[in-house]
Amino acid sequence: MKNSDFIDRDLDVLWHPCTQMKDHEFLPMIPIKKGKGVYLEDFEGNRYLDAISSWWVNLFGHSNEYINSKIREQLEELEHVILAGFTHEQVVKLAERIVKITPEGLTKCFFADNGSSGVEVALKMSFHYHKNRGSTRPYFVSLTNSYHGETLGALAVGDVELYKETYNEIMIKTLQTPVPENDSLEAIHQPLLELEKLLEERGHEISGIILEPLVQCAGSMHMYHPFYLKGVRRLTEKYGVHLIADEVATGFGRTGKMFASEHAEITPDFMILSKGLTGGYMALSIVVTSDEVYREFYCDYKLQKSFLHSHSYTGNPIACSAANATLDIFENENIIEVIQPKIEYINQKLQQFRHLPNVKEVRQRGMISAIELEGYRPEERIGLKVYQYALKNGVLLRPLGHIIYFMPPLSITFEEIDKMVEVAYGGIEGLNS
Amino acid sequence: MKNSDFIDRDLDVLWHPCTQMKDHEFLPMIPIKKGKGVYLEDFEGNRYLDAISSWWVNLFGHSNEYINSKIREQLEELEHVILAGFTHEQVVKLAERIVKITPEGLTKCFFADNGSSGVEVALKMSFHYHKNRGSTRPYFVSLTNSYHGETLGALAVGDVELYKETYNEIMIKTLQTPVPENDSLEAIHQPLLELEKLLEERGHEISGIILEPLVQCAGSMHMYHPFYLKGVRRLTEKYGVHLIADEVATGFGRTGKMFASEHAEITPDFMILSKGLTGGYMALSIVVTSDEVYREFYCDYKLQKSFLHSHSYTGNPIACSAANATLDIFENENIIEVIQPKIEYINQKLQQFRHLPNVKEVRQRGMISAIELEGYRPEERIGLKVYQYALKNGVLLRPLGHIIYFMPPLSITFEEIDKMVEVAYGGIEGLNS
Repeated sequence: MKNSDFIDRDLDVLWHPCTQMKDHEFLPMIPIKKGKGVYLEDFEGNRYLDAISSWWVNLFGHSNEYINSKIREQLEELEHVILAGFTHEQVVKLAERIVKITPEGLTKCFFADNGSSGVEVALKMSFHYHKNRGSTRPYFVSLTNSYHGETLGALAVGDVELYKETYNEIMIKTLQTPVPENDSLEAIHQPLLELEKLLEERGHEISGIILEPLVQCAGSMHMYHPFYLKGVRRLTEKYGVHLIADEVATGFGRTGKMFASEHAEITPDFMILSKGLTGGYMALSIVVTSDEVYREFYCDYKLQKSFLHSHSYTGNPIACSAANATLDIFENENIIEVIQPKIEYINQKLQQFRHLPNVKEVRQRGMISAIELEGYRPEERIGLKVYQYALKNGVLLRPLGHIIYFMPPLSITFEEIDKMVEVAYGGIEGLNS
Repeated sequence: MKNSDFIDRDLDVLWHPCTQMKDHEFLPMIPIKKGKGVYLEDFEGNRYLDAISSWWVNLFGHSNEYINSKIREQLEELEHVILAGFTHEQVVKLAERIVKITPEGLTKCFFADNGSSGVEVALKMSFHYHKNRGSTRPYFVSLTNSYHGETLGALAVGDVELYKETYNEIMIKTLQTPVPENDSLEAIHQPLLELEKLLEERGHEISGIILEPLVQCAGSMHMYHPFYLKGVRRLTEKYGVHLIADEVATGFGRTGKMFASEHAEITPDFMILSKGLTGGYMALSIVVTSDEVYREFYCDYKLQKSFLHSHSYTGNPIACSAANATLDIFENENIIEVIQPKIEYINQKLQQFRHLPNVKEVRQRGMISAIELEGYRPEERIGLKVYQYALKNGVLLRPLGHIIYFMPPLSITFEEIDKMVEVAYGGIEGLNS
């Protein structure tokens, strides 16, 4: 079979996510036959180095032998069971391990299916917690330039106009507080002052503040200093407002530590996990929270304080087995240590971009790095040009506007880093020729 | 290993969906070791006939050999790839098949991960469609007693107080129109008049009406006549408002036809599919819509009319392979024909309940049936008593308040129907002794 066997068939029946479908009149849809390691391969033998981990999910390569073997084992035992009133070995093990590896004080796991649903769980739980204590607080705070997903609650706490503006009339109103302008220590001062002002004035109306720790991923890979996070934790404690850490994209080693919150040594009230949770295999999310939150819902049924949220596949055994296999790999192969020299190597390789005339800034946090271009108008769709160049040269990049970024599987080798960076360099350098 | 090896460990780290966790001080959590056919088995060899298909998802039994084999094949090829700019064989095949089996005129598939996310996609698409045509319509209509999921947008179009009331301050306002009081033809007259009045007055502000065709599943398995659905289709066309059919629970044979909308021979503008879509294996959802809707978004990128919704695992190959295997079984084993005598048999078996003094109504639509009890106060938690009785006797029922219902896997045998019904009968009959 050839690529062309699937392209027309695809365009006839599929509406792709986050895509203007008309673009595919000039941009070929690429049908992938198989994945192995960091590579995706189409039906004509072309290979693409997956430098974005297929939307930031893959950690240890495509079709990973070990994860496959664990899923096969699980299929023979139990594919699924309702998680209300029932439980199973994989979900218990996974929850225990998540409690163990997340910051101290996070002790209870509530499962959902994707990042957006996880965000919705955290928002509802935070609001409901205050309500159970007799305080109705209809506002959530998020950072400017933030993104937390696509369902209407998750979208409402976002601040990227591109995704949000269209739907203004069908979302609740939320409050935004400025994100630090850059990742320097100096940049955190003014934003913390402004947050304190907001909490002082309106804290009693606010359930929680949600943020992506250190890196606003869909927000152009904008990065800020860990001390800002420390400051937010201090202020939210002072004013009795929840801190909700959206680690959907930043979790599982991406920032160089297991979770981005660790860089600031803080414990949020809620931590949302998804994407890398299953090693990039399938949809699953977890909201981890504290005993204190849990206890506000724990009471006689008739008091009607229960958290009645559910999804059919909550705690799905197959997805949990993929997640447990992923955590096995982290442990058995000392992944957090193993990636440190890769992070340093990427850092070295990034330096060359600083000399390019169309590069405004180069930034990095662990395995996430971004090259911000300047001098182009949005209509030029400069990111799309780099995307096309990279594909032709065997690398899958997917720039965010004029931000070219890397978020490769943690298993990427030094040689693969060379190739990924080299192709991106060629794409950026060639823009002006 | 024994059940007790998991119970305390579970309660230490897990917060279960739709559960007052304090109930587990007297209600034992049941750890499931394996599933096979309609049975779930715990670590001590107790078996439970899964009469609710583990939250209405399972179709062809647990750990189904055929579906397992198809997932194993897929694992060797491709576990996941980003669906923006890329595609793969399983998702193309699945979308083609879904277009073929859903009502004529539904031609484009947009993927998401769970029912709630599917509902959010349909709501956003409907609103966005009108906006792209220059009309801002911030309202959605749903039926009284409706339920469409848990994320804040999906919850906002619901009308079951138990799930919704707590969150009133953090949801958008929606409009409700009365559902017919029962499944008789007479009961549809007044509700259609009221809907027409609403559409006449406020149609220009309304994007769409969302409903579960024929059975409001989480709404106490309330059922209404197919002609109501026909009437709604006629009125929505007349007033230019979308009809969104939430077939998350009613789809894939549950009502005796592949989709409940078929009973009324209508084509909605959006059909939302999930739950049974993967045969009960894992999270996946699809919103199917028309070329007309699709075309309103299809234009030059710079016009900014694109539908930019996405989830990381949109169109996940493993989930799609489970869905394709599920459709194989429907085709190869003529499932819709095969279940007809089972539906008739269940109907016969249900008659005995009508004679019980505490039974108010018995209703059935295909493989879904419900026995409504009367004469109890909510505090008595009568459903919980039936639940406990059934578990002791090897059947998993999970009543909705005072509604005892059956929604078994389509693969259930006549003997298994006997057991399921017999145990429910014993539980209901014994309530007053």
